[in-house]
Amino acid sequence: MNTDALRPVYFLSDSTGITAETLGNTLLTQFPGNNFDRITIPFITTVEQARSVVKVIDGAAAAGPAPLVFSTAVSSEIRQTLSACKGTIVDLIGTYVEQLEQALGSHASGEPGRAHGLGNAARYQSRMAAVEYAMEHDDGQSLRALEKAQVILVAPSRCGKTPTTMYLALQHGIFAANFPLVEEDFAREGLPKSLKPFVSKCFGLTTNPLRLSQVRAERRRGSSYASLRQCGFELRSAERLYEFHGIPYLNSASVSVEEMAATILQKMNLKH
Amino acid sequence: MNTDALRPVYFLSDSTGITAETLGNTLLTQFPGNNFDRITIPFITTVEQARSVVKVIDGAAAAGPAPLVFSTAVSSEIRQTLSACKGTIVDLIGTYVEQLEQALGSHASGEPGRAHGLGNAARYQSRMAAVEYAMEHDDGQSLRALEKAQVILVAPSRCGKTPTTMYLALQHGIFAANFPLVEEDFAREGLPKSLKPFVSKCFGLTTNPLRLSQVRAERRRGSSYASLRQCGFELRSAERLYEFHGIPYLNSASVSVEEMAATILQKMNLKH
Repeated sequence: MNTDALRPVYFLSDSTGITAETLGNTLLTQFPGNNFDRITIPFITTVEQARSVVKVIDGAAAAGPAPLVFSTAVSSEIRQTLSACKGTIVDLIGTYVEQLEQALGSHASGEPGRAHGLGNAARYQSRMAAVEYAMEHDDGQSLRALEKAQVILVAPSRCGKTPTTMYLALQHGIFAANFPLVEEDFAREGLPKSLKPFVSKCFGLTTNPLRLSQVRAERRRGSSYASLRQCGFELRSAERLYEFHGIPYLNSASVSVEEMAATILQKMNLKH
Repeated sequence: MNTDALRPVYFLSDSTGITAETLGNTLLTQFPGNNFDRITIPFITTVEQARSVVKVIDGAAAAGPAPLVFSTAVSSEIRQTLSACKGTIVDLIGTYVEQLEQALGSHASGEPGRAHGLGNAARYQSRMAAVEYAMEHDDGQSLRALEKAQVILVAPSRCGKTPTTMYLALQHGIFAANFPLVEEDFAREGLPKSLKPFVSKCFGLTTNPLRLSQVRAERRRGSSYASLRQCGFELRSAERLYEFHGIPYLNSASVSVEEMAATILQKMNLKH
């Protein structure tokens, strides 16, 4: 047995594996001293497939540290087959089914739920429409239909507007536009004219000058655009503008797009 | 008590709430006959905040069906405070901590894990770079740096290339480009010239003619572009082209972007 080997972690699912990965990884953050080799095996829909997965896991178990296995398989036959593997099984569905059956007074369907499938078609279509909207309204490209936006992110260039907008659209189905703040906006201490009717939908981003300067230098090294002085000026001006117009804002320097999106939903009171 | 009221479901977290929503919603798909009113309360980081959340839940419990509560709070004080609420608590962290401590032979940190935070900074930066890459390479906009793509989605217009590309980038950190197949490509039964060196990275999308016609009609009603005949022709031609070049492909008509992304990762053997 090779004791230096990483501990394998399997995320098993009869569907995409997203839920198993999400909860599994959240649990693993509680054990920061460990290093893991993560393997996702999605679409395990037959007992035969489950048997070959068990062989893979048993093979890993024989070769190194005991594997951890997070599973969201729903069918009881598949769950039973998987439970025979030589790993520590965390059965994310089986654990809770009884408790929920009691609470809801009804039986679990036992059918793969496709939580990440099309689900409610209208809701799915609206998420896809949100992605399209975000693409069209990225970086102030289009002023058309701004009244449809649920939120408009404003910030100087390279503060994280685009990925945050995409995340709001793709994950939460929020109609989000984003708009760059540029030198001229700061000169007259005003919002871009086209945003004025929508100030209550605006949410500002800022960051730290050093961080912004580094990110901009990846694009244009040595430019005044990337200089610490220019970055500091733009961020201070943007923050003053947010304060002046009562626009809520967030420093993106040490938070992820997921955290920014959650904060924006909460502060702007958006239903997703 | 109003028995017609929807049953409230709370997703509670000391961080974004994404994990609680994800596993909670997956579990709820097992009970398709029920209707729920979903409320996410993220960033519960103090015992005081937890106490006010308990008040909210108890208020809901007094007014209608008993709430379900999915929580990923990590701190034992917060978990204890929340556990006093008058709802059915599903404690997604507490349930597994002991089992994992035993399996790993180490203690859980008890610190909020920020599974959806910046985490590994290099990995996070690379996800953000993937989003930028996807934006630049959407719809064949740029042929620059196609060699950096891990996968290139090809399909006729409106088969779902853009949201799938964005999902691969944002969620999985995959460098994905996408490229439209147009009439001229079908005329000479060839891939667009600029894609030829990268045929092994190509993944095709198709859909059903009726569905494509509906989606296109939303953009240009009554156009020949949206006609069933044209849609059928383009899809048949695209599929023939995929077959001819040995390009794996997928029908996007009844699957979600999450499912497409999981399938693409699996079939193209991409590590995320």
